Amino acid sequence: MKLLHKGKQTIVFDESPAILSSAAIGGKKESEGPLADYFDYTSKDTSFSQTSWEKSESKLQELALDTAKRKLDVKYADIDVLFAGDLLNQCIGSSFALRDTNIPFLGLYGACSTMAESLIMASAAVNAGYVRLAAALTSSHFASAERQYRFPLGYGGQRTPTAQWTVTGAGCCIVGTEGSDIHVKAATIGHIEDLGIKDANNMGAAMAPAAISTLETHFSDLGCSPTDYDLIVTGDLGSLGKKIVIEQLAKDGYDLSENYNDCGCMIFDLKEQDVHAGGSGCGCGASVLCGYLMRQLQTGKINKLLFCATGALLSPISTWQGESIPGICHAVTICKEG
Amino acid sequence: MKLLHKGKQTIVFDESPAILSSAAIGGKKESEGPLADYFDYTSKDTSFSQTSWEKSESKLQELALDTAKRKLDVKYADIDVLFAGDLLNQCIGSSFALRDTNIPFLGLYGACSTMAESLIMASAAVNAGYVRLAAALTSSHFASAERQYRFPLGYGGQRTPTAQWTVTGAGCCIVGTEGSDIHVKAATIGHIEDLGIKDANNMGAAMAPAAISTLETHFSDLGCSPTDYDLIVTGDLGSLGKKIVIEQLAKDGYDLSENYNDCGCMIFDLKEQDVHAGGSGCGCGASVLCGYLMRQLQTGKINKLLFCATGALLSPISTWQGESIPGICHAVTICKEG
Repeated sequence: MKLLHKGKQTIVFDESPAILSSAAIGGKKESEGPLADYFDYTSKDTSFSQTSWEKSESKLQELALDTAKRKLDVKYADIDVLFAGDLLNQCIGSSFALRDTNIPFLGLYGACSTMAESLIMASAAVNAGYVRLAAALTSSHFASAERQYRFPLGYGGQRTPTAQWTVTGAGCCIVGTEGSDIHVKAATIGHIEDLGIKDANNMGAAMAPAAISTLETHFSDLGCSPTDYDLIVTGDLGSLGKKIVIEQLAKDGYDLSENYNDCGCMIFDLKEQDVHAGGSGCGCGASVLCGYLMRQLQTGKINKLLFCATGALLSPISTWQGESIPGICHAVTICKEG
Repeated sequence: MKLLHKGKQTIVFDESPAILSSAAIGGKKESEGPLADYFDYTSKDTSFSQTSWEKSESKLQELALDTAKRKLDVKYADIDVLFAGDLLNQCIGSSFALRDTNIPFLGLYGACSTMAESLIMASAAVNAGYVRLAAALTSSHFASAERQYRFPLGYGGQRTPTAQWTVTGAGCCIVGTEGSDIHVKAATIGHIEDLGIKDANNMGAAMAPAAISTLETHFSDLGCSPTDYDLIVTGDLGSLGKKIVIEQLAKDGYDLSENYNDCGCMIFDLKEQDVHAGGSGCGCGASVLCGYLMRQLQTGKINKLLFCATGALLSPISTWQGESIPGICHAVTICKEG
């Protein structure tokens, strides 16, 4: 039963926990992008009828959880545990979204890696038999992130060419023992990589080393290669981080040129939507996984997916103190079988 | 293998994962309190020779992890996964402490419940056979917490009688399959309770409902009672929250008068150390558990401990927006056996 061996970072889920339901929520800009049709719900009102941007973000999580729950036709009381987190200080996007649900709650902080982290935790809890149903949930909101990490929106600050656009979106997966042909097969838990990048407007470059490390560890731990997957996606490296990943993996003997993409490059039209290097935020990978990618799996357009969400574990304070940006990446193998 | 059943929140760890090593680190005030002798290391220099309070807090975690690792005579490479979090925005206390360790890392946010949450995760990972060695780690620092949550220290603000004093401290446990007679037997995962308390200077009252809920759920799920434990402790409710817990549980038929205490009331001398309602912060429950309480277990002064860490899932932003304070509490049964 020892699935993770000395020096390896990959767990194989021998009971193949299944993703029974998922939901993706998006904002206005997301509803105008290439993946518009794959959201369960989008709103032209970016505030989602709330009185603060933080409450809007909580609303995104409420909608994602409620939608995933209704699709599965269960109640909150049927969900045995929920793993969630977000980018807001003290993760209030999650705690305020969940406070009336009475679902046993374990909070996470993995920055933009949270969709992978929460899905790993939920799958691990189901696979071990600790719970029957576990939910994984995360979100980000452009306006709450901008004012917390960068500038108040009203300031009208210029954005650098390397900057990314925080996705207003949320994703939720509900994992159980059986009842779907989409299974979580393995997970690679990343360690922090920090190569000294200090530019908080170039998150793609800061997070790319973690993605590279986790991808190569995943291939090495399982003795597999990129061609074993129909699609490999990272969470929100954007166009610059994506390029770094492709180039470095090529140098290291892994060809990602055919079947690799980044959710930050998929969710927006980078030429038309003025998002510079692409989408970012927990909600980027989360809404692309729980919307578009789950649909690709359900319809058999892809059967083997490696979902790698990356997080930049900085804060505005650490940047102001001149620190570099620690990155992390967790990878999850999701397969359609049966 | 289904350990958590419908409507219940408690996992029984059937493989009895063992706490193989622990370490507690404290600051100056903690070194002057009643539990001074139980820290592995305390510093009269609250900055821990660092150039910012945030770096001091990371140093606390580095010291706790390094000490626990050295006690067990292992290397970082032997630790298969580490669960950590803290109170700082984006949990930079943890991410900067861990960035050079290369340990697979899953970040948590449970506010002051983090020691229980991380110990539950580490125990669950070992119990399921996912890993051989898992570490649980958290910290808080008086100065980094004050300036983030309340006022800059130089402002010299007055504190209300209900206020608590954030502990400068860290705790780390390393959990494995065998090699110690101190075992993690069960865990109750709490849900959020929010009874509408809005006073961010009265965290004890805000978190007490979560402690009450989780304690009663624990007793009910396992069909046990307070007398089944030698000691029941909450993490950092302080004197006011402790009183609320005792009174409400008495009303509900559970007598806590003989064997219940709160780490926030234990770590400081409430009369002499000017800490008002007692200690608080992730480092409060963490350093008391990993120092004093582990020693009590090791020496057989107590054999059955119920450790319940409580967290207030607010942020300064949520308080400024007039929101009430969501609380959470997770409970862990730790027993000396054999």
